[in-house]
Amino acid sequence: MSATSIVTEKPSWMTQDFEQKLDKLARVAVECGLGLRPGQEVVMTAGIDALPLVRKITEHAYRAGASLVTTLFSDEESTLLRFQHGADGSFDAAAGWLYEGMAAAYRNGAARLAITGGSPGLLSQQDPEKVGRANRAQSKAYRPALELITRHEINWTIVSAATPGWAQAMFPELPEDEALKKLWDAIFAASRADRTDPVAAWKEHDAGLHKRAEHLNAMRYAALHFRGPGADLKVGLADDHLWLGGGTRAGNGQYCIANMPTEEVFTTPHKDRVDGVVTSTKPLSYQGTMIEGIRVRFDGGRIVEAHAAKGEQVLRQMIDTDEGARRLGEVSLVPHSSPIAASGLLFLNTLFDENAACHIALGQAYSTCLKGGDRLTPEELAAKGANDSLIHVDWMIGSGEIDVDGITATGASEALMRRGEWD
Amino acid sequence: MSATSIVTEKPSWMTQDFEQKLDKLARVAVECGLGLRPGQEVVMTAGIDALPLVRKITEHAYRAGASLVTTLFSDEESTLLRFQHGADGSFDAAAGWLYEGMAAAYRNGAARLAITGGSPGLLSQQDPEKVGRANRAQSKAYRPALELITRHEINWTIVSAATPGWAQAMFPELPEDEALKKLWDAIFAASRADRTDPVAAWKEHDAGLHKRAEHLNAMRYAALHFRGPGADLKVGLADDHLWLGGGTRAGNGQYCIANMPTEEVFTTPHKDRVDGVVTSTKPLSYQGTMIEGIRVRFDGGRIVEAHAAKGEQVLRQMIDTDEGARRLGEVSLVPHSSPIAASGLLFLNTLFDENAACHIALGQAYSTCLKGGDRLTPEELAAKGANDSLIHVDWMIGSGEIDVDGITATGASEALMRRGEWD
Repeated sequence: MSATSIVTEKPSWMTQDFEQKLDKLARVAVECGLGLRPGQEVVMTAGIDALPLVRKITEHAYRAGASLVTTLFSDEESTLLRFQHGADGSFDAAAGWLYEGMAAAYRNGAARLAITGGSPGLLSQQDPEKVGRANRAQSKAYRPALELITRHEINWTIVSAATPGWAQAMFPELPEDEALKKLWDAIFAASRADRTDPVAAWKEHDAGLHKRAEHLNAMRYAALHFRGPGADLKVGLADDHLWLGGGTRAGNGQYCIANMPTEEVFTTPHKDRVDGVVTSTKPLSYQGTMIEGIRVRFDGGRIVEAHAAKGEQVLRQMIDTDEGARRLGEVSLVPHSSPIAASGLLFLNTLFDENAACHIALGQAYSTCLKGGDRLTPEELAAKGANDSLIHVDWMIGSGEIDVDGITATGASEALMRRGEWD
Repeated sequence: MSATSIVTEKPSWMTQDFEQKLDKLARVAVECGLGLRPGQEVVMTAGIDALPLVRKITEHAYRAGASLVTTLFSDEESTLLRFQHGADGSFDAAAGWLYEGMAAAYRNGAARLAITGGSPGLLSQQDPEKVGRANRAQSKAYRPALELITRHEINWTIVSAATPGWAQAMFPELPEDEALKKLWDAIFAASRADRTDPVAAWKEHDAGLHKRAEHLNAMRYAALHFRGPGADLKVGLADDHLWLGGGTRAGNGQYCIANMPTEEVFTTPHKDRVDGVVTSTKPLSYQGTMIEGIRVRFDGGRIVEAHAAKGEQVLRQMIDTDEGARRLGEVSLVPHSSPIAASGLLFLNTLFDENAACHIALGQAYSTCLKGGDRLTPEELAAKGANDSLIHVDWMIGSGEIDVDGITATGASEALMRRGEWD
């Protein structure tokens, strides 16, 4: 039995300063991230180790007028027990009733707040075939809820909490308490919870990202061209694509910032117009497994060759999820000087690492990244080049050595980024 | 911020002996309590403080062939935050989407395992009007799932885990670690997890309860008569009532023991044939509030006077939930020498205290306590005297000073219990 959750003394690093920052993180999560409407219900997902942040967010959500906050906790140890003791035939099962319930809550007006922060390599030692089947079953069951999220019909946000497993993976050389403190500090800094007025800091940052997206929208590029070590990739953009960055007005009218932190501007690639090779520049933690050194070749939008130095089997199962899992659903530009990249830390968590480098995502496109996308049918979205899949998996292709050009409709190249920075 | 859930050293009382008993408790919960069918899904509900038992049960459920174990954790601190910071108008909200999801899981074949063990007086300091409204909203939302449970259409069981809040309420004079250890020991003893072969011990105990129920069924009493200090109560029994005790064959074919521990034999009273006065003999912990010194008068099955020395407002709101909340749905006989009563402990938890004393329940009747009850329509059940309500709340009326007579169809009295013991 793990000793987690046995009541005990507070660690010495849980100072008043820590509690103030935790409180600020919870406040910006509710006010800036979620954009909670008074009277709105909140559905929160979190690991049990995120309990201190769950409680602070619960308090701020009620103070901001939430009608009810329900947290669905997950427990990594229970997840591991499944892989250790579950019957071979059982890994295609998923809690569809729970995901359908979440989708029903969203349809009835609930906001969604997810706290990430799991152990990056939780399932690395488990049978990749079982992990792949379990992930696929879960993705399928989660689909109705994910659609409401990717279409931004509701206000939602993702924030992070430091957890022992994550901190240990990032700082294996430090004692547990020190590692936890260091990770919390990095999260506070990246989430602007260390500022005197974090809400004002978020508003200013949000305005900057919107300005960058507006500039790119004015350019109407037909494609992007990534060049650098292991990369020569042309990413065609969807017809009527829209660059987004920072906050979004959700379909239910609430203004939310879906990722905290966020440093990216992103849009929808054309699912049939991606060609060339690209290499991952940071490890990808995918549902408990580490995938490193990804090298893929696209032809006509489709991955036709895929390798990974580590986790190749899980990568192959991921791109075999469905036809759309081999095609791009997102392309995102992040300068190499982003505060998260500047921290010099490798977070082993997509929410952070994708905001430290340019990245692409396999799978489902965001219809909000197309003009009038929320009013288009699935067929109309596909005709414009928006991809469709059970999955949406971001991975990092940017670094200080990558150049990015914008290709105009007439085929001319314009420098967008040089050596990872805006030109 | 509470320090709960910060990883730390194990307390000294978590010895190998403790872990063996915890393992045995988890084993009997899955094998004897739940009666899990290989391939069956499990939906578990538990407080976060019950995590050590949740993990052991998860392990045993997977070893026994569970296809998937999903635990819905609750957090008392988050519940309190609602009452402290929630908007006045919000207390009629409930997570209907979650309860409907649970009902869907049960309809699709899942088994239900609940772990109790919350702080008995968690909400005692909160506004009783808000507590009452929140309870009513939750009862209403829970109804679809509860019906499948009370009709025993699925296999289910309730077991307990010691938690700091519960232990402190029972043993306020002891240090936290000692109180927790003492409560765990009491739970292990009452749940037979301290036996060499707990599964065999449960089988023997189950056979004894069945024999007692069969004897009472053979008697076909029309009513029971409770007499003692503060009690002169005639409880008419429903037409075609069935006494049950120990395990039940659920509608899905699985044999389960719904309460661990269980020392009772129980049946369905006639909702219109209860007359007289009765007084509670132990405090009732009802959804976080303590209700003590209940005194009620029944006339024609209905409570026409209700008082409580403590928590009277919550009692009144409870019996105002709906028309059926003022009528009886269960009557249960437990000898005063039951092992739980013999422990001399007041558990402040119905699962234990109801197995230390004769008790009655306000609200919903179990249709399984009527001959062929699972095939009867709601109208047919009502015609036989089975009560219908959103609530089912047991409270204790037995003690070493109570006599119980069985009244035959011809009106003759036969001694059933004298001074709390089987005659």
